[in-house]
Amino acid sequence: MTSKLEQELEEMLPFWNKLQNEQKAMLSQRAIDKNYLTGTILHAGSEDCVGLFLIRSGRIRAYIVTEEGKEITLFRLVEKELCIFSASCMMRNISFDIWISAETDVETILIPSSLYSQISEKNIAVANFTNEVVSSRMSDVMWVLEEMLVKSFDKRLAHFLIIQSDLEKTDTLKITHEQIANHLGSAREVVTRMMKYFSEEGFIVLKRGSVKIIDKQGLKKLI
Amino acid sequence: MTSKLEQELEEMLPFWNKLQNEQKAMLSQRAIDKNYLTGTILHAGSEDCVGLFLIRSGRIRAYIVTEEGKEITLFRLVEKELCIFSASCMMRNISFDIWISAETDVETILIPSSLYSQISEKNIAVANFTNEVVSSRMSDVMWVLEEMLVKSFDKRLAHFLIIQSDLEKTDTLKITHEQIANHLGSAREVVTRMMKYFSEEGFIVLKRGSVKIIDKQGLKKLI
Repeated sequence: MTSKLEQELEEMLPFWNKLQNEQKAMLSQRAIDKNYLTGTILHAGSEDCVGLFLIRSGRIRAYIVTEEGKEITLFRLVEKELCIFSASCMMRNISFDIWISAETDVETILIPSSLYSQISEKNIAVANFTNEVVSSRMSDVMWVLEEMLVKSFDKRLAHFLIIQSDLEKTDTLKITHEQIANHLGSAREVVTRMMKYFSEEGFIVLKRGSVKIIDKQGLKKLI
Repeated sequence: MTSKLEQELEEMLPFWNKLQNEQKAMLSQRAIDKNYLTGTILHAGSEDCVGLFLIRSGRIRAYIVTEEGKEITLFRLVEKELCIFSASCMMRNISFDIWISAETDVETILIPSSLYSQISEKNIAVANFTNEVVSSRMSDVMWVLEEMLVKSFDKRLAHFLIIQSDLEKTDTLKITHEQIANHLGSAREVVTRMMKYFSEEGFIVLKRGSVKIIDKQGLKKLI
């Protein structure tokens, strides 16, 4: 009989039907439920190699932290996506440190790095899928780089507020200026100054610990 | 009898011995010699999908170009390295455009995208190697991102001059301020201003179309 976990793995892993029965069994036996509260750090740079997170619900954020403590968001992953960089120890030639935290409460299935690595070395469908995931994340990082290179800060901030509002499905965002700065690789003061400008222009209303978007079209025009 | 090309492929492709004889034969038959003069563009964004370049000699540069024509160098490849992003059409989930040009005269072996793709889908050693190459390039891009995020422009410029001098194995670099700006995603005026400062500090001597490093230690201290 197929377990609930096995059904979920089959639904979320595109290579499931290309696995050998033995590989399916190992995955079902060794994958475990892991849930995290908002704000928890799931993976801290190169300090751990916890495994791959398959997201059942919620949202995680991947970012880098500079020596000075500056952060910038690289990408975010939601339901049914696979987080592979929390297992970067299993990947040769990855020489950067990524941090991963829970942006909302998240429910995940954790696949141990060693097991995934072992299967990936033998099964070409898994290897090719890994390749696709890495390529997607590289595209995300290229996007961040291009944004930084090209866009003035007002455009990047306006874009961030719109994306955030779409993700949260609300116009009232519970987020601090500090948190926004950490998404955009900027300083809190810079965010505060630009938010004040946006508020004066009538795009947003500022409240303690939250921002309400009142003219989304205005923000979109800015971009 | 093994051809010279086949010997080179064996030497440069780590997966060669894991290929089937038929795959070896196809590669040997369809790979071709391609040489380019300094400054030639080998691959222009998403406009073409020419294939994978195995570099026999010389150096190529991969960069992005913004809509405004601003450039930034992502990585450079030298002898015995494989350039895979000139075949990015064969990779799913790559959503960015990379440009590749010859920084010096280069001699390459060109492997057609379709052939590599076909072999990679069937041979796990090739798939895993592709993965390693993509991970390496992603690490390069992360490095650029971190540099942009963290370092002030004087440090990035000092670092660039040192790397360039190591690559060229000389202290006299034949490079214009415009070219340096295109490596660092900056403007020519910004480079000129900082080079003037470096020259006043006694790190370099400026000449038309070239820069002579006279105090490498001084530049290193700056970083």
